[in-house]
Amino acid sequence: MYRIERGRTPNGVRVVTVETPHLHTAMLNLSVAVGSRDETPECSGVSHFLEHILFRGCEDHPTSLELNSALDRWGGALNGATGQELTTFETAIAPEGIERAIGVAARMLVRPLFRDVELEREVILEEIREEVDEHERPIDADLHARRLVFGAHPLALPLAGSLESVAQIDEAMLRQWHAERYRADAMLLCVAGPVEHERVLAACARAFEGLPAGRPPDPLPAPPFPPGPRLRLVPHGESQSDLRLLFPAVPEHHADHPVFVVLRRLLDDGLACRLQQEIVEARGLAYSVSAGIDALREAALFEIEAATAHEKAPRLLAALLDVLSGLHRTPPSAEELDRVKARARFAGQALADSVSQLAAYFGEGALLGIEQTPAERVAAIEAVTCDDVVRVASEVFCREHLAAAVVGQPPPAELRQTLGL
Amino acid sequence: MYRIERGRTPNGVRVVTVETPHLHTAMLNLSVAVGSRDETPECSGVSHFLEHILFRGCEDHPTSLELNSALDRWGGALNGATGQELTTFETAIAPEGIERAIGVAARMLVRPLFRDVELEREVILEEIREEVDEHERPIDADLHARRLVFGAHPLALPLAGSLESVAQIDEAMLRQWHAERYRADAMLLCVAGPVEHERVLAACARAFEGLPAGRPPDPLPAPPFPPGPRLRLVPHGESQSDLRLLFPAVPEHHADHPVFVVLRRLLDDGLACRLQQEIVEARGLAYSVSAGIDALREAALFEIEAATAHEKAPRLLAALLDVLSGLHRTPPSAEELDRVKARARFAGQALADSVSQLAAYFGEGALLGIEQTPAERVAAIEAVTCDDVVRVASEVFCREHLAAAVVGQPPPAELRQTLGL
Repeated sequence: MYRIERGRTPNGVRVVTVETPHLHTAMLNLSVAVGSRDETPECSGVSHFLEHILFRGCEDHPTSLELNSALDRWGGALNGATGQELTTFETAIAPEGIERAIGVAARMLVRPLFRDVELEREVILEEIREEVDEHERPIDADLHARRLVFGAHPLALPLAGSLESVAQIDEAMLRQWHAERYRADAMLLCVAGPVEHERVLAACARAFEGLPAGRPPDPLPAPPFPPGPRLRLVPHGESQSDLRLLFPAVPEHHADHPVFVVLRRLLDDGLACRLQQEIVEARGLAYSVSAGIDALREAALFEIEAATAHEKAPRLLAALLDVLSGLHRTPPSAEELDRVKARARFAGQALADSVSQLAAYFGEGALLGIEQTPAERVAAIEAVTCDDVVRVASEVFCREHLAAAVVGQPPPAELRQTLGL
Repeated sequence: MYRIERGRTPNGVRVVTVETPHLHTAMLNLSVAVGSRDETPECSGVSHFLEHILFRGCEDHPTSLELNSALDRWGGALNGATGQELTTFETAIAPEGIERAIGVAARMLVRPLFRDVELEREVILEEIREEVDEHERPIDADLHARRLVFGAHPLALPLAGSLESVAQIDEAMLRQWHAERYRADAMLLCVAGPVEHERVLAACARAFEGLPAGRPPDPLPAPPFPPGPRLRLVPHGESQSDLRLLFPAVPEHHADHPVFVVLRRLLDDGLACRLQQEIVEARGLAYSVSAGIDALREAALFEIEAATAHEKAPRLLAALLDVLSGLHRTPPSAEELDRVKARARFAGQALADSVSQLAAYFGEGALLGIEQTPAERVAAIEAVTCDDVVRVASEVFCREHLAAAVVGQPPPAELRQTLGL
């Protein structure tokens, strides 16, 4: 279905090609190992600001219009995203334009001009305003929940910085951050599509010439998950309260990671899963509810999110805790576990048709040290037993491990009571 | 790349198969020609409520859990969506499960049990609360802009109904709406994937047995676009003002439709397009801005949306109008027009790898009477000239054709002044 080839440019940029001769488009994914967890409160948002400023022009393509036109004509539209550990640039591209696109994208990352910093600051402030109220207070439940878990650690910093920190970032800071962090050993370029690895690798060798080698410093390790239950209430006047629950999980290389994946799928995968059935179908407590694993290099969070009318928030919180503890009280039947495993197999099969997912898996994943193939992942999930599920669920999903944030106007006493606070 | 086969069940359900032997998953798209434009204020939201209640069980699969488990084990997760003219049910599915999935999905639409109406009402009210403020007033700029254009016509009704109208819907109304609207002539099932048409058609003939033939009544035709400029200000206390501009466009079968597609792509497609360059890059007035065409059977709207800090809203509005009138003041260069056409070709090429897009194109499109193939569409776009662009842009993008809604706290006098009001 697809074939993986790996290489490196002379200066050390990793190059991965996922050859998919059956598909008609290609995807270019260029990732850099830098993000908000590398920052301090003083420079919070600098990785994200840098990601933005790179779109403003580089040597050979000195304006935003020239830079983006060079990709647009091959069907591309480069999308940048800054996370906690990675900054990623991704675009679909016509296969015949791939070498050209590699040249443009690499130029942009290696030789930026740092133009229009003031204009771009305005754009970023508008982006941040989407997550604050009219008094400029953050209303993102996820951010508040992370602050409960990570405290003063950089993992609690908002991905794009705050209105205050972004106001302080200047060209000198951006240039310094770029010089320190955009190093060959911190970069990985992955192409998935009907393309040949030798041509991709040769294009990369040319394109990344002059990029300094070297490895940026490692971030501070994540702190241990704090004892709970912890609850943060953030008053906000909308029609619903937004709930976010966090529990400790394990990173990808941990032996129990496949068990967490099964827990996630038991809770939230398809419409027969437990959260959908018990929160939405049986109790009408929310329109949508979801569970996810946010995996970092050496740690991970298990996240639950849902929203409901303010007065129903305590009932929703109690019901969510009930569903979670139900995983060890009422272990999955053989049929339920089989269904989850069948869905994991199907997801592995579907991967072969998506250049976007392939490029992310083999690009971003490899940069974070994930070596498992999709088939190995599926095999690890197949090996999870009902006993594994009960053991991990009873260890993790207890009030002592809960950090919860609620943004809205819920009845506070009732909410605290639900957690025995 | 793919092959289209068409047929009908004995009672008249249209069946389209897009055979894609190169892909590894299938997509099932089952559409019904009913939506909010078929409703009255008294039953506003009944199509959407019915879509929800169908997931609650049917003959042979009497509970939500049984119904959804039957699809989940083939990798599926049926997603329902109610629009103005169509209600669509869609799921990815392992190719070997396609006949089974057709059986389950058809059962659900043909023989629903109408269970748990009260519980489902709670879920729908939570869905609607996502678009209202703490006083239960709608804050969706799109809804307010449509009200300016469509007035008392059903096209101004919200897709899911209002908190008040949904409170009035009961089982009898749902049963009646189902009996009237879920008729064989109003349905189309499309499968895209590595599957054979003969098997799909045979499965459909079995699955839809007993569904009454007949054609539901046509909706009221859309009213003419009203004279402008019209402006609606909706006070709302967040950190940004949300702007929505509407202009009249033409439906798919109109000779000028390809010109509107080119206008849309000149304005918003890739990062070198005019809205991105002039609103975001050059003026820092928004984080994101977009343009789209909302096509109905016999009419269409050209939509622009963006958000910005309240005090910048008048400048944003003026800048948007400037970019739009710029389309005839500064017509596209040959290079700009070529880039847009190259991107349309690329999109046509990318379609071949996406069972989801293929199933939507050949399913929903056919039900709305769109007969053009993707290749014919691309050819029509290739034929658009610079003169076409100037002619249509100067006809359409003028203040006399503008309906604008702003949700937020912008300076009202300045905003009105921008429109000469």
